[in-house]
Amino acid sequence: MPHSNIETLSWHGNRFGSLHMIDQTLLPTEIKIIECQNVETVWEAIKMLRVRGAPAIGIAAAYGVCIGLQTADTTDRSAFRHRLDEVCDYLASSRPTAVNLFWALDRMKAEAEDMFEAENEFCISDIWKALFAEAKAIHEEDRHICRSIGRFGQELVQDGSTWLTHCNAGGLATADYGTALAVFFAATESGKKIQVYADETRPLLQGARLTAWELMQRGIDVTLICDSMAALVMRQGKIDGVVVGADRIAANGDAANKIGTYGVAVSAKAHGVPFYVAAPVSTFDLSLSDGSQIPIEERNADEICCGFGKRTAPEGVNVYNPAFDVTHAELIDGIITERGIISPVNRQNIEKMLS
Amino acid sequence: MPHSNIETLSWHGNRFGSLHMIDQTLLPTEIKIIECQNVETVWEAIKMLRVRGAPAIGIAAAYGVCIGLQTADTTDRSAFRHRLDEVCDYLASSRPTAVNLFWALDRMKAEAEDMFEAENEFCISDIWKALFAEAKAIHEEDRHICRSIGRFGQELVQDGSTWLTHCNAGGLATADYGTALAVFFAATESGKKIQVYADETRPLLQGARLTAWELMQRGIDVTLICDSMAALVMRQGKIDGVVVGADRIAANGDAANKIGTYGVAVSAKAHGVPFYVAAPVSTFDLSLSDGSQIPIEERNADEICCGFGKRTAPEGVNVYNPAFDVTHAELIDGIITERGIISPVNRQNIEKMLS
Repeated sequence: MPHSNIETLSWHGNRFGSLHMIDQTLLPTEIKIIECQNVETVWEAIKMLRVRGAPAIGIAAAYGVCIGLQTADTTDRSAFRHRLDEVCDYLASSRPTAVNLFWALDRMKAEAEDMFEAENEFCISDIWKALFAEAKAIHEEDRHICRSIGRFGQELVQDGSTWLTHCNAGGLATADYGTALAVFFAATESGKKIQVYADETRPLLQGARLTAWELMQRGIDVTLICDSMAALVMRQGKIDGVVVGADRIAANGDAANKIGTYGVAVSAKAHGVPFYVAAPVSTFDLSLSDGSQIPIEERNADEICCGFGKRTAPEGVNVYNPAFDVTHAELIDGIITERGIISPVNRQNIEKMLS
Repeated sequence: MPHSNIETLSWHGNRFGSLHMIDQTLLPTEIKIIECQNVETVWEAIKMLRVRGAPAIGIAAAYGVCIGLQTADTTDRSAFRHRLDEVCDYLASSRPTAVNLFWALDRMKAEAEDMFEAENEFCISDIWKALFAEAKAIHEEDRHICRSIGRFGQELVQDGSTWLTHCNAGGLATADYGTALAVFFAATESGKKIQVYADETRPLLQGARLTAWELMQRGIDVTLICDSMAALVMRQGKIDGVVVGADRIAANGDAANKIGTYGVAVSAKAHGVPFYVAAPVSTFDLSLSDGSQIPIEERNADEICCGFGKRTAPEGVNVYNPAFDVTHAELIDGIITERGIISPVNRQNIEKMLS
């Protein structure tokens, strides 16, 4: 049964309300909505990866602050301020390496800061309302960015065409619409009929578990393949274009994304298939001249050796498990942002779009 | 603990002896040797894929005939002949689609046929001895072919070089030495120090389960990667060459092999890494003009969706699961056979080597 209106995160009620989120650890075999009515539940959900993806974590944290304030003493200005700091510190400890978590908490604290200082102008209720509005703004801005990426990206999509994607740059990682998947959602909403091949994306199978699920929810014709089959389906002429997300993009357009993206790009070039990256402008890191400066995180061998809960490789075997790879700008036909499409991908065009 | 002398299949004793084989379904977590003392055990091992790989199945069947004759009435010529037919029919029913199984059983029956007809020249004991010798010959010929492929192939391998392989074209699929892996074994035996990257080879993980294990057994430095990482390690300059096996090779050199091989070949070409296929001349099917005539078997979706006992994709998702792909001759720098290396790969050179 498709649940086309399931949202990764949604707030129910006014500032006394609660945050609902999909428990992504149970997908795709179980769709369970967690109703967070206290800050501890939000903390646990971030910690245990029930909510994942940089934008989605930021949104969850901002709403988490609002939930934490529901138990604050609203008659004592300094007690309320103390509770805000306490809640922010607590949420920050859930995933200490998630940059977007700190970005969202800092933004919430900054919003309150000036209001606390202007003692005569704002009462506690004003500050609380402003914080709730800021959380909604963070949520809404991300939704807007994703919709905008979708709108620009879908212009590249012909009716009846077939696309390939790798990993999950979808609604589950963002407010509700994703980056790479936004292109497919927007094309479908504009009445185009498309097909999508989803790479399963070893080792953690985000393509099989999340992308295939999201596309099915929205009624898009999706076919799951192993990563090693992408070159064959391109050779068979089945693929009209590729869209993937990005974790970080250097000033020259080199883009880091989930491991395996580079191999897909090499195959796309060899078969004359256009290859696009979809990402918000916040993904660009202009302090990096090119992709060689992007550090590649290596992850635990068990992700490959014990992937399915069962050991499938010899004990003690050497394993190389990079989490990301870098696709070089010359393999990318365009970068789809919320401000428009950067193409051809080069320093000048990136500077122009970002300025 | 490396067990460098473990053989896929070995016969112990004279014609009254027994067949020992590794139970490949338990690898790599358990090394269990099955001792076949009756034909039912051989049948079950073939049926349940405890022994796999075309040459290995043929050898097991030939020895299975010998084991089946151990309970024959050796005082009655026609009873003995009847038992031979019965054993062959029984073994043929273990895996009705395995071509090499029939090839080996036919070869055993043909060996006995003439001797049965020449009633005055050969006694039952002579025929039985000849059948045992034939089984040993089938085993020995395969061993010889693998060693010869290794000898020719290792000339391509520089001391200190690093190679990549896909799937398992190793000793476990043959008498004891493999085809692609024979190149690494022979290079190591000739004193060269090499490193090998093994693609895990989704969906059935033969690379993780079997190739990594075999290379570790022989003390070769092996690093396991996901299939999607092959392009990255080539880009990083880590790979000096690729060797893979083949299931079927057309007259022009197009080679069918385990799914994912084609993507590796595309990446190798893009990075200037030499790509070799290692296969006995019996792999060539000159009735096929090119690879487009090789049928590609599609396998069950569960191999991708329920990899190792746990569902990892949504119920009802479309799945494309081709078992093989075809690597085009222009991507292959050489085909290593037991008669020498075919290079450049083209019709003329293939005809010359096979004639």
